[in-house]
Amino acid sequence: MQLQFESRTLHLRHPFIISGSQYSEKIVFTATLMHDGIVGRGESSPSRYYGEPPESVQTMLSDTARWIGDISSPADIQTLHEVLLQKYPHQPSARSCVIMAAYDWLARSCQMPLYRLWGLNPHKTCRTSFTIGMDEPDVLTEKVKEAEAYPVLKIKLGNGDEDYTIMQTIRRCTDKTIRVDANEGWQRDEAIKKITWLATQNVEYIEQPLPKESLEDMVWLKARSPLPLIADENVMTSRDIPGLHHAFHGINLKLDKCGGMWEALRMIQTARALDMKIMIGCMVSTSLAMTAAAHLTPLTDEADLDGHLLIRDDPFRGVTINHQGQLILPESDGIGVTEQGIH
Amino acid sequence: MQLQFESRTLHLRHPFIISGSQYSEKIVFTATLMHDGIVGRGESSPSRYYGEPPESVQTMLSDTARWIGDISSPADIQTLHEVLLQKYPHQPSARSCVIMAAYDWLARSCQMPLYRLWGLNPHKTCRTSFTIGMDEPDVLTEKVKEAEAYPVLKIKLGNGDEDYTIMQTIRRCTDKTIRVDANEGWQRDEAIKKITWLATQNVEYIEQPLPKESLEDMVWLKARSPLPLIADENVMTSRDIPGLHHAFHGINLKLDKCGGMWEALRMIQTARALDMKIMIGCMVSTSLAMTAAAHLTPLTDEADLDGHLLIRDDPFRGVTINHQGQLILPESDGIGVTEQGIH
Repeated sequence: MQLQFESRTLHLRHPFIISGSQYSEKIVFTATLMHDGIVGRGESSPSRYYGEPPESVQTMLSDTARWIGDISSPADIQTLHEVLLQKYPHQPSARSCVIMAAYDWLARSCQMPLYRLWGLNPHKTCRTSFTIGMDEPDVLTEKVKEAEAYPVLKIKLGNGDEDYTIMQTIRRCTDKTIRVDANEGWQRDEAIKKITWLATQNVEYIEQPLPKESLEDMVWLKARSPLPLIADENVMTSRDIPGLHHAFHGINLKLDKCGGMWEALRMIQTARALDMKIMIGCMVSTSLAMTAAAHLTPLTDEADLDGHLLIRDDPFRGVTINHQGQLILPESDGIGVTEQGIH
Repeated sequence: MQLQFESRTLHLRHPFIISGSQYSEKIVFTATLMHDGIVGRGESSPSRYYGEPPESVQTMLSDTARWIGDISSPADIQTLHEVLLQKYPHQPSARSCVIMAAYDWLARSCQMPLYRLWGLNPHKTCRTSFTIGMDEPDVLTEKVKEAEAYPVLKIKLGNGDEDYTIMQTIRRCTDKTIRVDANEGWQRDEAIKKITWLATQNVEYIEQPLPKESLEDMVWLKARSPLPLIADENVMTSRDIPGLHHAFHGINLKLDKCGGMWEALRMIQTARALDMKIMIGCMVSTSLAMTAAAHLTPLTDEADLDGHLLIRDDPFRGVTINHQGQLILPESDGIGVTEQGIH
């Protein structure tokens, strides 16, 4: 087994502004696993917020390329996952990339799509939302127009009184279903006030209303919220889930946050056993990572897999979205992505 | 997709005596799923204790054979699991049989062993124990001799002062590692006294010491027990696990109890997220069900998969056990069993 990788800079269609940060480029890594004449690919879109700068992924993948030949086959994902977790406990995005390549390899070696390897029904994928970052009213109006093809919008809030301006601006343009992500931007009393108002605005749920340290306030908020509350910054892996059951209605899992598909399956099963809602989200990424995540959506309730729609230079093609916003999985083997321009 | 099934009566080598019941025969069902020229097989070993008499399995499988053609392929295990759960919520053993056949079919259609479909390392299977039912001292001595090939024994206790006689009789014959299953046979104060003594007798852990209703006493016992305590009668599905975390150190999952491999994977992931020990057990069954369960053991900590060793007339061959008691998975496609006499 051999591993190669490359990094690339993705360019966003619009500078992305959320509570606390702004950026217009994103560095991602594509890993390629080769074994027995079959190739598997995975992607890492690391995040400084989660303590994983791009340089650390570069170092980890270089290091992994040196020892990965010792593992007999990419089909032994169990061993790969264990070794990666032990060697790089604080690099979930880099680990995800290698695990993704291994699952792509395994399903390609079976000559079947990844969802079928998992026994999943591809018609049970979720609707995905399309994200509108924070912006001035006229830019927001423009963005909502550009998002015409997507029937569910995700709006970033968490910036004081501007939240009302953003929401009202968007509601002047569209009555589409909206999901709100506050990215830890509110405090308790502000949150209950805003959520109570948002519940009258055809909003479906609220992601991470409070700072992740405010778990007691979350329990208070959950008891009063008219809308479901979804943990994002509060949940990294399956071990976090039992402790969040009393504070949130659901979790937002991301491959780059949890360490990859092996752990993502564990999170889905754990949340299901606790009767919690499951959504799967993403970082800004290419169609490779989006399509990989989409293979898990027959097991989730909601998806926010638009990372590839926010960039100008997606090198791959894979998952598509129909008029109802539902994710459509490719039928080809493995994760099922091809390079743009190659059919 | 077509389903056929047959029932058969297995004959035990010794009448099986546990706290509360005794039997020398066991009725099981073998289901066969056929689709695209590929055949998958599963087995049900139903239990009256769990409210599932053999007649109910017969009825359920006859009924399933009528509608199963409506599901496009056995590869859609997700849909099969959902429909079975909705139609037959109180027949976990019958559901397990159909799900097992579907997984066998799926892995055979990929031309790979089931463990590989799941990305598991076959060298990480567990040691299994061999069960010694309750009996008179001279019969017990005989049984321990017969069990010479198995380095770990499981002893059934839960019968007052006789527990000491049984344990002392066995310890006169062997110093092998012993696991104890009390099958709900003790009360709180009796349990702590016996467990404290058993901890000095090279005993590894205790299964279901108290009646399943005594959950508060279990919390008391867990805080004091010198040995790990494993839930059996207390745990049916993944939904039971979060509520048992404070009362037990681990769970004993069984395919016939939980409804099959789809749910078993969910139980394993949920228990892992809660840092609980996982053992996989069985009913009296053939090599078919034992081998199927053995495919899950790279994910569990302990196994008690001896159901096929307790019968005289195993029609299949599959999983074997090496000198260290470790389960050895067959390398052939699917679950990997063949009929006895067919190589």
